[in-house]
Amino acid sequence: MEMNQDQLITFLIVVIIISLAALFYAWTLYQSVKSEEIENDRLKELSSFIYEGAMAFLKREYKIIVLFIVAVAIILASLGVIPSLNGIDGVGINGAICFVVGTLCSGIAGFIGMKAATAANARVTQGANTKGMGKALHIAFNGGSVLGLCVVGFGLLGLASMFLLFIFVLKDIHAAIPVVAGYSLGCSFIALFARVGGGIYTKAADVGADLVGKVEAGIPEDDPRNPAVIADNVGDNVGDIAGMGSDLCESYVGALVSAVSLGLVVSVGGKDASLQAAIFPFIIAALGIIASIAGQSFIRVRSWNNPQRALSVATYVATGFVLVGSFAASSMIFHTLHPFLSVLSGLVVGVLIGKIAEYYTSDEHHHVKEIADQSLTGHATNIISGFSIGMKSTMLTVLLLAAGIVFSYLFFGMYGIALGAVGMLSTTGITVSVDAYGPIADNAGGIAEMANLDEKVRAITDRLDSVGNTTAAVGKGFCIGSAAFTALAMIVAYAQAAGLDSISLLEPGVIVGLMIGAMLPYFFTALTIRSVGTAANHMIDEVRRQFKEDPGIMAGTSKPDYAQCVDISTRAALREMIIPGLIAVCSPVIIGLLLGTKGLGGMLLGALLSAIMLAVFMANAGGAWDNAKKYIEGGNCGGKGSEAHKAAVTGDTVGDPFKDTAGPAMDILIKLMSVISLILAPVLLQLTPILNFLFY
Amino acid sequence: MEMNQDQLITFLIVVIIISLAALFYAWTLYQSVKSEEIENDRLKELSSFIYEGAMAFLKREYKIIVLFIVAVAIILASLGVIPSLNGIDGVGINGAICFVVGTLCSGIAGFIGMKAATAANARVTQGANTKGMGKALHIAFNGGSVLGLCVVGFGLLGLASMFLLFIFVLKDIHAAIPVVAGYSLGCSFIALFARVGGGIYTKAADVGADLVGKVEAGIPEDDPRNPAVIADNVGDNVGDIAGMGSDLCESYVGALVSAVSLGLVVSVGGKDASLQAAIFPFIIAALGIIASIAGQSFIRVRSWNNPQRALSVATYVATGFVLVGSFAASSMIFHTLHPFLSVLSGLVVGVLIGKIAEYYTSDEHHHVKEIADQSLTGHATNIISGFSIGMKSTMLTVLLLAAGIVFSYLFFGMYGIALGAVGMLSTTGITVSVDAYGPIADNAGGIAEMANLDEKVRAITDRLDSVGNTTAAVGKGFCIGSAAFTALAMIVAYAQAAGLDSISLLEPGVIVGLMIGAMLPYFFTALTIRSVGTAANHMIDEVRRQFKEDPGIMAGTSKPDYAQCVDISTRAALREMIIPGLIAVCSPVIIGLLLGTKGLGGMLLGALLSAIMLAVFMANAGGAWDNAKKYIEGGNCGGKGSEAHKAAVTGDTVGDPFKDTAGPAMDILIKLMSVISLILAPVLLQLTPILNFLFY
Repeated sequence: MEMNQDQLITFLIVVIIISLAALFYAWTLYQSVKSEEIENDRLKELSSFIYEGAMAFLKREYKIIVLFIVAVAIILASLGVIPSLNGIDGVGINGAICFVVGTLCSGIAGFIGMKAATAANARVTQGANTKGMGKALHIAFNGGSVLGLCVVGFGLLGLASMFLLFIFVLKDIHAAIPVVAGYSLGCSFIALFARVGGGIYTKAADVGADLVGKVEAGIPEDDPRNPAVIADNVGDNVGDIAGMGSDLCESYVGALVSAVSLGLVVSVGGKDASLQAAIFPFIIAALGIIASIAGQSFIRVRSWNNPQRALSVATYVATGFVLVGSFAASSMIFHTLHPFLSVLSGLVVGVLIGKIAEYYTSDEHHHVKEIADQSLTGHATNIISGFSIGMKSTMLTVLLLAAGIVFSYLFFGMYGIALGAVGMLSTTGITVSVDAYGPIADNAGGIAEMANLDEKVRAITDRLDSVGNTTAAVGKGFCIGSAAFTALAMIVAYAQAAGLDSISLLEPGVIVGLMIGAMLPYFFTALTIRSVGTAANHMIDEVRRQFKEDPGIMAGTSKPDYAQCVDISTRAALREMIIPGLIAVCSPVIIGLLLGTKGLGGMLLGALLSAIMLAVFMANAGGAWDNAKKYIEGGNCGGKGSEAHKAAVTGDTVGDPFKDTAGPAMDILIKLMSVISLILAPVLLQLTPILNFLFY
Repeated sequence: MEMNQDQLITFLIVVIIISLAALFYAWTLYQSVKSEEIENDRLKELSSFIYEGAMAFLKREYKIIVLFIVAVAIILASLGVIPSLNGIDGVGINGAICFVVGTLCSGIAGFIGMKAATAANARVTQGANTKGMGKALHIAFNGGSVLGLCVVGFGLLGLASMFLLFIFVLKDIHAAIPVVAGYSLGCSFIALFARVGGGIYTKAADVGADLVGKVEAGIPEDDPRNPAVIADNVGDNVGDIAGMGSDLCESYVGALVSAVSLGLVVSVGGKDASLQAAIFPFIIAALGIIASIAGQSFIRVRSWNNPQRALSVATYVATGFVLVGSFAASSMIFHTLHPFLSVLSGLVVGVLIGKIAEYYTSDEHHHVKEIADQSLTGHATNIISGFSIGMKSTMLTVLLLAAGIVFSYLFFGMYGIALGAVGMLSTTGITVSVDAYGPIADNAGGIAEMANLDEKVRAITDRLDSVGNTTAAVGKGFCIGSAAFTALAMIVAYAQAAGLDSISLLEPGVIVGLMIGAMLPYFFTALTIRSVGTAANHMIDEVRRQFKEDPGIMAGTSKPDYAQCVDISTRAALREMIIPGLIAVCSPVIIGLLLGTKGLGGMLLGALLSAIMLAVFMANAGGAWDNAKKYIEGGNCGGKGSEAHKAAVTGDTVGDPFKDTAGPAMDILIKLMSVISLILAPVLLQLTPILNFLFY
């Protein structure tokens, strides 16, 4: 099929209609969740505490971010003043518009998703209480699906609309691409703040609540006597719902933008072929949305007693649909299966990385049991063994990533690598739905506990929640894998924008860039986990203070001051997210100015290398520690309350900021830096690096 | 000064004479240590336990290593059969000879140093008991100086002799260089096994002894009732004496070999200039030996009451001497100060990296106090904050390294970077003396404790030991810095040997190489710290068993079975050092064959980046945890026995394998892989990479 710009526009309009449909469907799901009446007043009250805490945080967070958005938009707009040398335009005012729209789409997706999640939690509790597993699963999954559909719906809607708009404004699809990169920047921008802020919030509350509540006071998780319990439940929403949603939105958009950008410069025979390559990623994304809706409906058509099976079936249906669709699209548009094979490589690698994560973090394999055994000899041996397992897990993951890169490259060069990322993320709609369902179930369990409902309610929500943990591990695999592919594709796009044919590792400027880049993820991690530690410390002090000053709290005769704990987490998260955010945004600018385009290329690749390793290490070490604790709580190695259990709680607590704050931020960090560099490239090209005299 | 090959030979002969003089001086020091009579029978007995344990380990270790040496030598010799294509000869039988001589020199240096250290320990105890601080310092420092002088003496003697020999055999200095790389390989080879084996030994014993003894049984460190106490003291010798000595010997030799190799291809005007560049590193090394002897004699000429001052003065004297000498040599030989400035950059960076390490790990700065504070809220917050501080410390260190690379490059290109490493390591003689004196003082304290000597003896040895800790941190800075410089220089030498003008980060084969390279240090670390964890676990079980089965041990009425614990450490260390060793040796070969010379170049740089970050992170996190524990033991945050102290012991125990097993092995790992690649380059050049079809 030959293609011209008009056909491309038609395709884009279809893509926009599909995204709108996804958003409409999300709206109906939201209404269906809200249509359930909460009858129990206590449930209503608890749910409103969580809702208000979460909304208050999000509003304060967005207020701070808006300042940054304005600043960045002004800078982007002013870059347009610099005249172009090599035909690639600076982003200018058009890019600034795209950037702002990107922040809006990503922010709104997280916001609506969180509204739905906080509406769903108490209703899940009630469903479990009155109607059992099937009903609870349906409500939880519907709540999660709102986020899933909003993420892909808004992400794709914004990108396709901006693309369409600027094709008309600029009259040339090639000129529209660098402008659209601004949209990706907007999404990354929100994602970074939401992930870091949300991650600090949730883990400070979690660690604080656990250490004083479980370990010192000996009260169960989610006990209403614990002053930090509401903050902990709010944290699930701001971190694991809003943060995770923005994170996946930026992965999704980033993969699409890098594929579309590289697609336009791909040479498969003339300009028309590159139009096909530019539209193909959109088609995969649209197929993915339809596939996700189809997968979701498999869950809704009947009542499931086995939630694991329900979610797996939904995911398989969606994946199968995307594969069949992209096979057809590949043959029709390109008359070859190469693009399909790249998509397939990406999907397979994504699934396998998830499996590896499962292998290292599930208690069905020997690693988690080893950590549990090492807990018998104390806290230190628990930490050492979790550390070792996290690091060990990098080997298979990296080999697999390397294989994925090689294969997707083999089929379609660098464009193939970007297609691999698109493939991995094509089913984002369903992945996010499944991911978001976990914290909703978790919240529902917390509410059941706080409302003193029957044990059986908690049993149901625990079962729902535990399935969420497994699927979350697989989801993280997709995030890490796609981040590596996307960042790599963006670095290549950057090199093209900067007119670099090669960036040689033998040049001292590149070496210095690589070293600084490799250091940044460490420094960034240091800051974020320290923030969690400090904030958790404040939380611990506050909880201890409340217990001490009012003995009525433990006796159950007086209510703890939940608001104070919510406030501690909120303030800590907002204060601590700023510096890491500035580092991510400023380092490419500074290094670009100091070392020039080659040095910046080195920095990006150095950061990519370090970030992948740390992300894999932190995700898997954290997951393994978590499950080792659960394994012991299941009655092994002495069970709950034993010395081994205390050691395992230490491991879990150390792992929390690794796997839920610093780890996921790694993926965003590298993409954010890469897309900033891509946007800066035309400007840097026209400047002499400040430190040029040192190297040449 | 113009130079020809005859003059170069004269210079080499002078260098050989100076190294022989250093060895002779080491012999006299050893005799002077042995001339002190040990009068107390208990001291004699304890010292012989340690001596026998250490020697037994070393003999068994060397027996295993010999098998590997034979295998590698055969492989190297057979590589000579492959005909050369680009004029650079394969290593062949000549390289194999150099390799074997390298293993001998490095092995013997560690062996003699350990003999001296185990002879000195009880004599230091006796000196402290009968004559006080001055005498104890003299004996400890003399014992340490034997290792210091053996490391530089044997290292330089072997290198200069092999160089001289093969200039005559091959008739051409340029042809001699790749052969001499075999010598460097030999030193790296021994260093890797000695560091990993020794590191696992010492930390398994240390962790095991501490956790059961201090924490569970509540007996002090080095209490003779602890069955693991002899193993712990043996560990200091096999890890911190023999292991550290081989490690620094390989750093020293590696820096020299890379500088000499790059010197020969440097263009500063014709072939004669390159001869000057080849001899200059030898001159710096010889100056360094004289400087180290001069510095040492400053300690001997009078009695010191302040050991910190004594060691600092000695180090400053040596450093000053080297700077003046290299200033003179640079002007005379090159008629320019550029080489001197490169040497100076290296020295300054080495010192400053040490200062940064001190800043992050000394309790005079806020970081260590922060860890102590975070210990108040438990084990987990202690771990999180130590982790964060270790990661944070990478920032300044990497910026400094980058600055050092830029400056030394500025003055003399890549050769300048290698000179920077030579500069950093020029004072190795005195650094190792000071480093080795620490474990001797530590052992002396242990013996005093076990022999129930007066408190004042322990006070003196503790004071000597604590100074050793500070100087060790500075020493680690030199190790990390020089490793980065040396490995970089070797990678450049490798690229030249492989005929690569550029290794572009934009090629998929290079990217895959980078990713795999970046993963290797993680995998390697995972294996080594896991080995420590497992071995410590066995040790803990054994100590618990002995305490349980024979209550007379705790009562002091029956002797524990020390030999059993020594055996556990020995077997664990020997078993666990093999796989990491194989990984280091085999990965460049495998990646070279699969991905070709460019992919291998990528792997080396990826490994370098990861290894630097992990080495800095692990060294500083470990040091900070250690000192936070000591800070609490000094009476802060609740003091000894408090909950905060227990948390701090956990941190210290986690940090032990980081800073003393895995961390130092990083430096060796990257140099070993680089030098193997350098040697393999001519062979790889003639093969088509197995995976070539995937990339091109």
